[in-house]
Amino acid sequence: MNLRYAIVGTGAIGGYYGGRLANAGKEVHFLFNTEYEYVKNNGLKVDSVVGDFVVNPINAYKASMDMPKCDVVLVALKSTRNNQLKQILPPLLHNDTVIVLIQNGLGLEAQLAADFPNHTIAGGMAFICSSRIGVGHINHADYGALNVGFYQLPKITVLQQISSDFEQAKVPFAIAENLNEARWRKLVWNIPYNGLTVALNTSTDKLMQNADTRALVTDLMNEVLDGAAACGEKIEPEFVDKMLSMTDAMKPYAPSMKLDFDNHRTLEIQAIYSNPIATAKAAGCYMRKTEMLAQELKFLDGVGC
Amino acid sequence: MNLRYAIVGTGAIGGYYGGRLANAGKEVHFLFNTEYEYVKNNGLKVDSVVGDFVVNPINAYKASMDMPKCDVVLVALKSTRNNQLKQILPPLLHNDTVIVLIQNGLGLEAQLAADFPNHTIAGGMAFICSSRIGVGHINHADYGALNVGFYQLPKITVLQQISSDFEQAKVPFAIAENLNEARWRKLVWNIPYNGLTVALNTSTDKLMQNADTRALVTDLMNEVLDGAAACGEKIEPEFVDKMLSMTDAMKPYAPSMKLDFDNHRTLEIQAIYSNPIATAKAAGCYMRKTEMLAQELKFLDGVGC
Repeated sequence: MNLRYAIVGTGAIGGYYGGRLANAGKEVHFLFNTEYEYVKNNGLKVDSVVGDFVVNPINAYKASMDMPKCDVVLVALKSTRNNQLKQILPPLLHNDTVIVLIQNGLGLEAQLAADFPNHTIAGGMAFICSSRIGVGHINHADYGALNVGFYQLPKITVLQQISSDFEQAKVPFAIAENLNEARWRKLVWNIPYNGLTVALNTSTDKLMQNADTRALVTDLMNEVLDGAAACGEKIEPEFVDKMLSMTDAMKPYAPSMKLDFDNHRTLEIQAIYSNPIATAKAAGCYMRKTEMLAQELKFLDGVGC
Repeated sequence: MNLRYAIVGTGAIGGYYGGRLANAGKEVHFLFNTEYEYVKNNGLKVDSVVGDFVVNPINAYKASMDMPKCDVVLVALKSTRNNQLKQILPPLLHNDTVIVLIQNGLGLEAQLAADFPNHTIAGGMAFICSSRIGVGHINHADYGALNVGFYQLPKITVLQQISSDFEQAKVPFAIAENLNEARWRKLVWNIPYNGLTVALNTSTDKLMQNADTRALVTDLMNEVLDGAAACGEKIEPEFVDKMLSMTDAMKPYAPSMKLDFDNHRTLEIQAIYSNPIATAKAAGCYMRKTEMLAQELKFLDGVGC
């Protein structure tokens, strides 16, 4: 049986992963917003370090009610728009649909589960440098792995087929045994770099080269480890060094939150900062510098850039 | 006996207080830097909420070696230039000269005392909104009190005469019984507002109007109280509310550090942040958010605005 995929939120992340699957011959249906007309006529163009391609013709839609029911729904909206999923998702779902939230942060699956208690929900973590560089045009600059774990009502055999489909589509894929731990691990990178590039109007390489911000990045990472540990997820201390070394080796990079800020889009503060801080606080861990960064970001989010 | 005053660092603060004394008929000798030629010819102009005036003619100098020995030396340089005091001060000093550091932060008197162990050293805290708005031109927008306490070799009768001179010159003057406590109290205001207006490129009123930065300001103030308490200086918790209310009542204001940043001058991070953080840490108190603000400021100080 071939899986039918839906991409909800065809931006830098959804467009790349959905585009890869379509390019590998899988059946993929893409939900667009403002780019619909352009992409319908011109296709979706992806420049990628592992090979450029164009998806044309493309199964493009401007409303989910026009789309077929799918076996796998990959949600790659900004998490600030997740309140729209209650309206967007129902036309796409049959009883066995697997919904995968490919987003950053904590608490998003729980929020979705409140509206869809009887559906399989998974979380996906994208380890990728990808950005929208024009209408219907995505640039995949580095990395690309996808890591998926279940939140509720797991369907292991379907996930194995999803894994196989992605591997055929040149996307390194891993199954996360413990979604909560995997989400905290991702936060070890996201919490320092997403926020500090916005607050200090800079890029990852400059944060690493300055001794004070390098120390601050390290402090924030250690706070995430403390928060995770308070919530029962032990992350080995060496993971901090691994993330620092990985970032040292990266090209200068503006994380998604920096791109959002520079493009006057609402910041994903709730999922990436407020939810982890509140969860850790409830477990007895006060993430003080992380909280300060969230306070600064909420101020800047209101002011604009 | 009339006291002879020297002003070392005739900027927004030194120019205002020295100007007030001169305008009240006291003997004041002003050390200038780049403004010397202009002020020698045109005088020092002060626009003030308690009355405008011009000091002309003025005892202006461009090097301390040309100045007479004085009874009171008011140092109002940026503290980042205090390493120059070892060269600047000796021509101005007789055995009984009182040196007053009118600067913000902690540890400055101790640093000076290492070079001048046998002179009377005091610290001064200026509660004033004053800024340089042109060459030889100062604007005093609000407040104006001066608070002075001894660091070493106190001379109470001289300080009483200084107090009387300032009161005659329309400057509210108070004697601080405990300089260390008074310095910590001043930091309760300086630590949040100086740094956050730079880090978030904003002004005091905007910090107060946003719920998140208002909470952050309060957090930082409470950390300063914790730091002070660890160092043996108890400040009553109501002092935080008092500082918040005072700032609510102020006109929108850019603190000196914001003006320094916008004018590409070196920031006074060492005195206002690094020294208090290190002193508190040595006493067992970790000022975590204050440290983060210092880390951000050190990064921004290197980048420029």
